[in-house]
Parts: sequence; structure tokens; C-alpha cells
Amino acid sequence: MSTTPAAEHFKPKKSVALSGVEVGNTALCTVGQHGNDLHYRGYDIHDLARQASFEEVAYLLIHGELPNRATLNLYQQKLQSLRFLPKAALRVLEKLPAHTHPMDVLRTYTSVIGALMPERENPPVAETRDIADKLLASYPSALLYWYHFSHHGLKINLETYQNEPTQASYFLRLLHRHAVPESWIRAMQASLILYAEHEFNASTFTARVIAGTGADIFSAITGAIGALRGPKHGGANEVAFRIQSSYSSPDAAEQDIIQRLQRKEVIIGFGHPVYTISDPRNEIIKQIARQLAEETGQQLLFQVAERIEKVMKEQKNMFANLDWFSAVAYHCMGIPTDFFTPLFVMSRITGWCAHVIEQRIDGKIIRPSAHYTGPAPRPFIPLDERR
Amino acid sequence: MSTTPAAEHFKPKKSVALSGVEVGNTALCTVGQHGNDLHYRGYDIHDLARQASFEEVAYLLIHGELPNRATLNLYQQKLQSLRFLPKAALRVLEKLPAHTHPMDVLRTYTSVIGALMPERENPPVAETRDIADKLLASYPSALLYWYHFSHHGLKINLETYQNEPTQASYFLRLLHRHAVPESWIRAMQASLILYAEHEFNASTFTARVIAGTGADIFSAITGAIGALRGPKHGGANEVAFRIQSSYSSPDAAEQDIIQRLQRKEVIIGFGHPVYTISDPRNEIIKQIARQLAEETGQQLLFQVAERIEKVMKEQKNMFANLDWFSAVAYHCMGIPTDFFTPLFVMSRITGWCAHVIEQRIDGKIIRPSAHYTGPAPRPFIPLDERR
Repeated sequence: MSTTPAAEHFKPKKSVALSGVEVGNTALCTVGQHGNDLHYRGYDIHDLARQASFEEVAYLLIHGELPNRATLNLYQQKLQSLRFLPKAALRVLEKLPAHTHPMDVLRTYTSVIGALMPERENPPVAETRDIADKLLASYPSALLYWYHFSHHGLKINLETYQNEPTQASYFLRLLHRHAVPESWIRAMQASLILYAEHEFNASTFTARVIAGTGADIFSAITGAIGALRGPKHGGANEVAFRIQSSYSSPDAAEQDIIQRLQRKEVIIGFGHPVYTISDPRNEIIKQIARQLAEETGQQLLFQVAERIEKVMKEQKNMFANLDWFSAVAYHCMGIPTDFFTPLFVMSRITGWCAHVIEQRIDGKIIRPSAHYTGPAPRPFIPLDERR
Repeated sequence: MSTTPAAEHFKPKKSVALSGVEVGNTALCTVGQHGNDLHYRGYDIHDLARQASFEEVAYLLIHGELPNRATLNLYQQKLQSLRFLPKAALRVLEKLPAHTHPMDVLRTYTSVIGALMPERENPPVAETRDIADKLLASYPSALLYWYHFSHHGLKINLETYQNEPTQASYFLRLLHRHAVPESWIRAMQASLILYAEHEFNASTFTARVIAGTGADIFSAITGAIGALRGPKHGGANEVAFRIQSSYSSPDAAEQDIIQRLQRKEVIIGFGHPVYTISDPRNEIIKQIARQLAEETGQQLLFQVAERIEKVMKEQKNMFANLDWFSAVAYHCMGIPTDFFTPLFVMSRITGWCAHVIEQRIDGKIIRPSAHYTGPAPRPFIPLDERR
């Protein structure tokens, strides 16, 4: 996350390499084209988050257009049919102990399924889209099968939950193993839509660099998950929650954050390498977080988050990004903190796969240069003559 | 691999994105600084390949300097002690069927070991170097345990081979399960040295993009393996062998290659995105391949490869890169073709890890931009109104 104040508009920021350098083409997304807006294939993120289901957005990104009702029904059935896990994948998940980082679980699952059901060389794009749908459909299965097995010794029967209509309800049902309020499902849908795509961020760029060598899509996604794991990228929503939940009152939060800023600490969840005025997704997720906090009696958490937002604006002219209030919303739905970044995976898998398909059309290997800072050419000294 | 003739020196090549763009600092390597030379931390690749062992070069890259005799002895002992595999990793490897791509085996192994023995957050660099040494030491164990189990139903006892003095002899012994000629071990050493490091190539750049988000080193290496898997990158040496082994004589090869060039086909194993005159590693690996071919009665393979090299020079003014004669050398040592790229991993792991350590010092997230080619902003049409 950048610490540059919003005043310095459109200048490349020192803490971000390649900022503003166009390294390829995309038809998927514009970020901040008119200051602080976000569009997926031309559709405004506000329209999508408020009026569409996540499955419509997934179809838009992976398959190219918004589906009509009949196509959407078929797509939902397809995703349901792809939620199963191959037996060998179940056995591998059982070998990962309870202390495993859930992002390592998804990274390993992706690599294993790529080993078990590999992509063909030079496949038709329809096959690659099938793989994208398989990964999208089965990530909740993989994460929560591992979770219940490693934490509770339970081998859950995935078939019991297979017919949940949406990815949002499937994930929440698998996690809680009982029905959840409709408002949670709607909130989860919106959150998944907001996280689905964001141009050439670090994890998407990783997927494209890997795809550029002609590698299979599983390799590209495995790498993207690794990149998203970092605290400067997808890991940010987990760090945001740890900050928010550490205060007993909004006043205590304000006092401490001001002190941290005086010590020049970076507060994760604020600012953005591309947006300069605000994050267009913040307004939507903040409203969702407020409502869920009221419904679940988590008002303190919301109030602390909102106060820190105010302090960051006043003190540093910095805005909350998507991660900040996502953390509040996820916590209200009873989601373990270290599942926050895996939820990002379950959404961004749509954008990543769409980018892999685009990179293959582009056909370029991505191979930059380095600035050399090491020793000048020097003579080789044979082993036994070295000090 | 580029198809640009050598005449167009130093022009960015269309088929390579970011060519010539400096995206970070490195003290590890210069590629073609004076036309067609290669240095690791200031040492000429010719000196290293002819006078050093692979362990000396691994130590140079990961730990910073060439070791003296005492340090080298300790380092070899350390690598021997790190060759074991955790039990859970053995069980996972047993779940990967015989048809698994060996690169998928190494990708999965890296992800699994990162799940089982994760890197701490913000670790001291010494701990990251220990992980680098662990991966370096254990890749032959992982690949060949899986190989003998899935192909021959054998659970090999890794301890039997643990005291082999070098990575080269450990790999060859584990593969063949009997002693191999000293000339093979020396050839393998040189080959591992030649493949160890090459600046900001696509897989190394992948590792750096992942490391730039603050992710753990296992995530970075898992992604790098995925990138290396592509036929435009590490997969090239496998493709090269498939070309070389398809001809019954040098004349037949010449005839067919000329026809392919007339059809504008790309011949993998020739040209390079950075070198423009020749690949400095070619001379070394060609000499090794010639000698091994004589010793093992594979002269036809070498003669075909050499004839194609001549044709490519005459017809297209293109030079053989490292992959071309590596393919001949590996085949002469009885290495299955789909282990060629995994051998690249077993060597390049040294450069990758050194780059991850450098990227962390750099401290930058890598986040480029895209050129948008998609639809203009358009109104959202509710589901039931869509065609």
C-alpha cells in the first residue's frame, strides 16, 4: 500500500515499481480512468455490485458477456457440478496440518489439481474456460474440506452442500454447516463482485508473466495465489482486521493511530497504488459492513474502523481502500480472519483466468532487464587458493 | 525464443514485452554486458563452468561469495543433511500418478513443503538462505522418490544415497540406482552451473513479482517453477530434444529444417531475447555434449544437432542457445526427456532464491499498467431484460 498523499496525483510512486508503465493489453477492466471509477468490461462496479449476482460477474469476466437468465441458470448448474474434489486431492488436503496457512492450502490444491487433471498443450479457449470454472467452483470445497478435517477431525460430505445456488451461499454453508441469513449471502455476493478484477495488480501480473512463457493455467494461478498471499497485496484485509480489533473504543483507536502516524508507521488498508482520490469500492463495502455490524451486534468494530478512516483522512489525506471495511464485513459473518485472503482468491480467480486467456492471445513472453549493482568482472581464484 | 535475426542488434524485440526496461536492481548477474558474455557476481561463466563445482556456484549465488575449502566442506555437509523429505511430503508425492508432468511434481512439492515448514514473517535473511538450501538439497529427492514410486512401485530409501558428495552425483545415483561414470558427474556439474542464473528472465521475474508483495519464499519459487514450465522458457530443452531425435541422418535434418524455415516455423533452441551474437554457454555445453555422445555411442544425435546448428546459422543467422546441446548431453546420460526442465529447476533454484532475497531488500511491490482495449462505459441491463 502506498503512503503517498492524494495530493500528488498521477505521479509514479516510489514504492511501486513499473507504476504507470503499460506492459500489455486488456479488455477486462479500467481502474481510475476518470479519477476514481472502476469498470469490468465497460460496466460500472456500482451497478454490478448492487444489481448483479457474483455468478453473472464471473460469467462476464471468464466468458465475455453478461448472461441472460437461461445462460445463467446453466452456468450455475455447471458450477454446482464442478464442486467435487478428486479423491487424490482429498487425500492430499488431509496431509496438511491445522496450522497450515489457508493460502498455502489453496496454492497446494491448485498445484495438485493441475497435476491430476492437467491442461492440454495449446488447448482451445473453451477448455481453459472450463478449468477456470472448475477452480472457481471448487475453491470453497478445498478450503473447507481441509478446514473441517484438520480442525475438527471431520470428513464433510461435499455432496450434501453441492446444490447451494450460489458460490456465496455454498461457501457460507460449508463454513458454518447451518443456514445463514439471506443478508449475509447478499453481502458475500457483493464482496466477491468487488474483489473479482483489478487490471494489472501484482497477482494478476504474476499470472500473466507465467502465462507468457506458454505455461499451463494451473501454473499461472498457483503463482497468482502466492503473490496475493503477501501483506502488501491480498494479505491486507487480514492485517486491517488485526488493527481494528485491537482497540476498546473509537477514542482509543484515534489516539493510537495518531501516535503511529507520528512514528511514520504505515497503516494497512489505506491508500492505493492506482486510485488517488478514493477507492470506488469503499462506499459499497462500507454500507454493507455497517448493516452487518448492526445485525450482528458488532457496532464497536464498525465504529473503530470508521473513526480510523476519519483520522487517516484528516491527518494524512488518505482514503480507506476495499480491504478496510471488507475486514469488518467478513468478521461479522463469522469468517475466521485467516480466511479473508482465501475469499479474495475465490473471487479474483475469475479475473486471473480471464487475464491468462488474454495473455495467450497477446502471445508475448515478459522479460524485463535489471540495473546491475554488483561487482565488476573479477578473476576466478581456484578453490584451494581462496582465503 | 525470439526469431529476430542477429543483424538487428539491441533493438527491443516485438515478441518480448518489457525488453530492455530496467525494473529493479541486481548484484547477481550480467547478461551480454559486452555483447555475448555472462557473469555471476563478477565471475565469468567460462571460469565457473570449467573450474568450479556446482556447490561453489550455489554458495556464491545464495550466500554471496565463493567459499574456501573449509566452508565448502561444511556447505556440502549441510546440503546432505537437508536431502530428507518430511513424511507428509512423501505421502503427497505418492498421490501423484505416473502420468504427472514432472514440473507439476516439483511445483506441488514446493507448495507442500511451504505449507508444512512455512517461512516466518519478516525472517532474518539467514533463515531464508536455509530454505534456499533446503529446496536445492531436496529437489532430487522429491522428483526421484515420486518417479520410482509412480513408475516402478518402489519406495526408495533416500538415506541410502544421502552421502553422495555433490548434487550432480546425488541426482544421477538416485535416478539410475547404480554408479555412473565420473565424466557424467562432471558434465552434470557444468550443466547445473550454466543454468544457475540469468538475470531477469521470466521465471526469475515471476519470483520477484511475488516476493514484491511480501509473500513467503515458497510462494515465489512455486510461481517461478510454473513460469519455467512454459515451452518458451525452460520447456525449450525438451522441445529441442524432440526435434533432434526425429531425424535418421544429418542430411535428413538439414532438408527438413530448411523446409520448416520456408514455412516460417520457429525452431526452439535458437536465438535469445538478450544475446544477439551468440550464447556464451553454447561453446561449453557443446563440448560436453560432443564428448558424452562419443562415450555413449550417441554420435548420430550430436551430428544431427550440430548440422541443424549450421543450417540455422547459414539460413537465419541464428545461434544455438544453452538449451540446444543441453538436450544432447542429458539424453546421453540416460535422463528421461521430461526431466530436462526439472534439472533446470534444480540449478536455477539458486538464482531464484538469491533474487527473492534481493527483492526483499528492494522492498517494492511491482504493479504495472495495461493498455485498455475493451468496451467503453456502458449501461447495466438487469438480468431479465437481457437477450
